[in-house]
Amino acid sequence: MRLSDLTTPTLVLDRGILARNCRRMAERTAAHGVALRPHLKTAKSADVARLATDGQAGGITVSTLAEARYFADRGFRDITYAVGFLPSKLDEAAALIRDGVSLRLLVDGRQAVAGIAARAVALDVDVPLLIEVDCGGCRGGVDPEGGDLLDIADAITAAPRLSLSGVLTHAGQSYHCRDVAGVRRVAEQERAAVVRAAARLRGAGYAVPVVSAGSTPTAVHAEDLSGVTEIRPGVYMFNDLDQVGIGSCADGDIALTVLAGVIGHNRRAGRILVDAGALALSKDISAGEFLPATGYGRVADLAGRPHSGLYVADVHQEHGLIAAVDGEPPYDALPIGARVRIVPNHACMTAAAYPAYHVVEGGEHVVDRWDRVNGW
Amino acid sequence: MRLSDLTTPTLVLDRGILARNCRRMAERTAAHGVALRPHLKTAKSADVARLATDGQAGGITVSTLAEARYFADRGFRDITYAVGFLPSKLDEAAALIRDGVSLRLLVDGRQAVAGIAARAVALDVDVPLLIEVDCGGCRGGVDPEGGDLLDIADAITAAPRLSLSGVLTHAGQSYHCRDVAGVRRVAEQERAAVVRAAARLRGAGYAVPVVSAGSTPTAVHAEDLSGVTEIRPGVYMFNDLDQVGIGSCADGDIALTVLAGVIGHNRRAGRILVDAGALALSKDISAGEFLPATGYGRVADLAGRPHSGLYVADVHQEHGLIAAVDGEPPYDALPIGARVRIVPNHACMTAAAYPAYHVVEGGEHVVDRWDRVNGW
Repeated sequence: MRLSDLTTPTLVLDRGILARNCRRMAERTAAHGVALRPHLKTAKSADVARLATDGQAGGITVSTLAEARYFADRGFRDITYAVGFLPSKLDEAAALIRDGVSLRLLVDGRQAVAGIAARAVALDVDVPLLIEVDCGGCRGGVDPEGGDLLDIADAITAAPRLSLSGVLTHAGQSYHCRDVAGVRRVAEQERAAVVRAAARLRGAGYAVPVVSAGSTPTAVHAEDLSGVTEIRPGVYMFNDLDQVGIGSCADGDIALTVLAGVIGHNRRAGRILVDAGALALSKDISAGEFLPATGYGRVADLAGRPHSGLYVADVHQEHGLIAAVDGEPPYDALPIGARVRIVPNHACMTAAAYPAYHVVEGGEHVVDRWDRVNGW
Repeated sequence: MRLSDLTTPTLVLDRGILARNCRRMAERTAAHGVALRPHLKTAKSADVARLATDGQAGGITVSTLAEARYFADRGFRDITYAVGFLPSKLDEAAALIRDGVSLRLLVDGRQAVAGIAARAVALDVDVPLLIEVDCGGCRGGVDPEGGDLLDIADAITAAPRLSLSGVLTHAGQSYHCRDVAGVRRVAEQERAAVVRAAARLRGAGYAVPVVSAGSTPTAVHAEDLSGVTEIRPGVYMFNDLDQVGIGSCADGDIALTVLAGVIGHNRRAGRILVDAGALALSKDISAGEFLPATGYGRVADLAGRPHSGLYVADVHQEHGLIAAVDGEPPYDALPIGARVRIVPNHACMTAAAYPAYHVVEGGEHVVDRWDRVNGW
């Protein structure tokens, strides 16, 4: 089967680019002497996870219980759940732990610890916890210099079925850096915050085996990871226009595209219409923070080569409107029924609309189909 | 089962509000003497479709082949596919037509007609077509005054297996009107364009049984629909903050919410964190065009009553960050594990992340679960 045989819109993943992205990240982490615990929130696929963990210890990171169950069922038994955990979700997590999965959960407050502790006793299960540290992203996590850090560690170790595995941070602010020097500064903030938190806990007598950091930009550009034991990047497997804009990768490193069909020419408006709209591409326009003429994605041909200057200028639910940076879009080159591949702004958001990937290897021949686990 | 028993994030649909929204739209269309052909692109649910077609002729509108198959399998046999149709998709559509479904497809150019005609002959199937008319939205459709309209009608009627059913338009620009007077002007543009196209075709000797118009804003506020035979609104069934902003409904008319759990308090940043982020809410921020402090959605309590001044100020993939318009968010009223319901900006985008609705009837008791058909 070839890409031109597929019903549109659909998701295309280039295995060669994916494998190269995974290999490069493995080499970077090896050079730093830290473990790579890839975050599967982007890929949500066991086939991708096998490539991303190739040569690694095998541990992964997830962002939903649906991912935890899916990956555990497919042989990934060392899982960190990297979103602040709700006590009411412990019943589902406990089923995995009882089944032998090494599952670490994340907390950043004593209320959550108390709630999880009570459920752990009721469910008769041992629960290892990581304390989330805020390294400047202002999302979750405690101040690495504040009193909460030690209070939470005390609460965890005082609870009968809980244990402290370590500390974890995520530099979400790296997604808004405008150059590599900025990413490097954030990478050092990230490292310094989580290593400082670990040092304070060790100073108070706690063992802190896990010191976990990492976003894709900081994982790519960090100069020093001393004191960090593992990193958890995710989107590097696929890359996207946002990562090109931040400087994490080059255009040729983007493995994920959306296959679309030309459904109309609106010559009065200067637009070529395709059947990939807001649901097929997502409404994420993050790359526009860095790059001109990205809109809802840039346009490539069926073989993945860029259609220079073409981008999706607007979307409706099932319509994408392609414009040219200069002048008219090439109506004759893209007649009704022609196929294009749209390079997404944000791979995590775009991929979430699809149940599977159609896998290619550098060309138009579909070599495999890999499923995804969406939802919660 | 109650809402507090559900795993978060999940989708909640209030059947009482839904039924009232459907009844009101049925009354409006009856008052205008036009047929209501509800667009199921928002709801993607047979249970919702049964309410939306109650007392109507039974015809529906869809935006994907997945919807067409799903609804045809569940007894909806009169379907208009309201997105410009690709010849390569005719194999799948032909299977429905052969199965007895009355399925009308949409075209706006002679290339598409030629492609569909060739496939119709090859597949040995009769295909009724509608011509899309542009009423000012600058998406798809021909100029109602231009030569293409008659050329396309000629091409359709000259082709052996094609027939002309009528004309169709959609006033997408109604989503950017800032007041009811503006919506009324757009409603009249929409009516005038599609009725003019029908008149020109009739003048050229064509029968034009279908003259189809309608978006939710124009369906709510149109003063005159003379010459129109049917309208195709969709989001009115659920409504959302965007429709409140446009003036299509009141806050109390929104039937759809996302149930989320409080997973953290970031007092340094002044944010309450919930487990509904960019995937659970979508990145649609359309209501921000009209209303202050909507962000990625407004916050209500478990019973659906607004938490005054609370909104989702920022999202990450699985995190929503709730802020207060004035001062600090109410940490004590929303401890870890508390549930909230988030009122979405754009129901079509938000609902697409979920496989089903948890149905309530004015309270917290879950009375049913209705499935959805996502994808393509």
